[in-house]
Amino acid sequence: MSTNQEEVQLLGALGSPFACRVQIALKWKGIEYKYVQEDLANKSDLLLIYNPVHKKVPVFVHNEKPISESLVILQYIDEVWKQNPILPSDPYQKSLARFWSKFIDDKIATPTLKAVYAFNDEKEREKNIEESTGALQILENELKDKFFGGEEIGFVDISAVFIAFWIPLFQDLIGLKWFTAEKYPKLYKWSQEFLNHPIVKENVPLRDPLFANFKARYDRAVSASK
Amino acid sequence: MSTNQEEVQLLGALGSPFACRVQIALKWKGIEYKYVQEDLANKSDLLLIYNPVHKKVPVFVHNEKPISESLVILQYIDEVWKQNPILPSDPYQKSLARFWSKFIDDKIATPTLKAVYAFNDEKEREKNIEESTGALQILENELKDKFFGGEEIGFVDISAVFIAFWIPLFQDLIGLKWFTAEKYPKLYKWSQEFLNHPIVKENVPLRDPLFANFKARYDRAVSASK
Repeated sequence: MSTNQEEVQLLGALGSPFACRVQIALKWKGIEYKYVQEDLANKSDLLLIYNPVHKKVPVFVHNEKPISESLVILQYIDEVWKQNPILPSDPYQKSLARFWSKFIDDKIATPTLKAVYAFNDEKEREKNIEESTGALQILENELKDKFFGGEEIGFVDISAVFIAFWIPLFQDLIGLKWFTAEKYPKLYKWSQEFLNHPIVKENVPLRDPLFANFKARYDRAVSASK
Repeated sequence: MSTNQEEVQLLGALGSPFACRVQIALKWKGIEYKYVQEDLANKSDLLLIYNPVHKKVPVFVHNEKPISESLVILQYIDEVWKQNPILPSDPYQKSLARFWSKFIDDKIATPTLKAVYAFNDEKEREKNIEESTGALQILENELKDKFFGGEEIGFVDISAVFIAFWIPLFQDLIGLKWFTAEKYPKLYKWSQEFLNHPIVKENVPLRDPLFANFKARYDRAVSASK
């Protein structure tokens, strides 16, 4: 359990879907923390010391002990701060939540990011969007309740912020649309309800300035790659 | 906790490092189970029903409820059967174990398998072996005790059976050597101690027949790709 002298810190970066997961979880649990914004083009010594292996955000630091990998962080938070559980207590349900969050990372987030970065390789972009499309269909079939967590938001929902917030943003960025209400009625409806949840709403970035930032970086990267 | 009427089943396949992790964990805990050998060239209906998403082994089935993904399975087993814990009880140590196991999968197992399958693409093979080499060095620096779990085998050790048993096998298969006692003295010593542990010893495949099997399949695949 938490003590009175907690030092809780999150190293994030503007527009990081993986840091956003941790922000939602911390808010969900009502945990106060210090947010440190990293500039990934110019990484701080703190980030390099705390995550020497991947040199990436998010890094969660609890009483000077750093943890990396967003899904590992979420589980840690859920184990240390027991209020408002994110994971189900039943071991089988818990294993399903772990399975689907890994699925979202491996089969949706990874190919989507590859598609975004495939500036000059239409075939590579297409292949990755196809993979993401198929995986979204599997997730569509999996969604039985209002949220993946049931009537309330849980581990899989928080992991899937990538789908709700970032995929639409990336679609506008690269001018392609594959996550639509027509193709994925349940998942799309879920994404709207999820983004409208008060705790989620105040913990995702502001869309317009983020889009402008991504667009400028994307255009620069496209030009540089030509 | 376990009841008297457990039905415990593992779907594995000859030479699967990921199924082997589960076999070691089950033996470690002293859990009786039925092993079902899958032929991955001709997957059973059972496998397709139990793991429709990935259609891969291992699948762990407990009282008819299936779980996929070896690291998810190991955590489930450790939560349901409390004896001989695999994961540390301290949440921070547990998060480190999760971090390193994911690291082994993403940064060592994945590139190693890609290197093996890159029959006709020397550059791709080289790139992946380089990635595996760098990651092994990081793990070498991480190893502080006899095992990753301390004086006894734990979650990271079991995950790392891929390194101890499969990397040497794959090296012989493709005729390249990157995991050596000279380059990784601590990790190499660990691999010997780990493989000599009685529970590990009786749960890894017999090397010679497995090598012959892999070699035949590899040679066929190489011929077919030409």
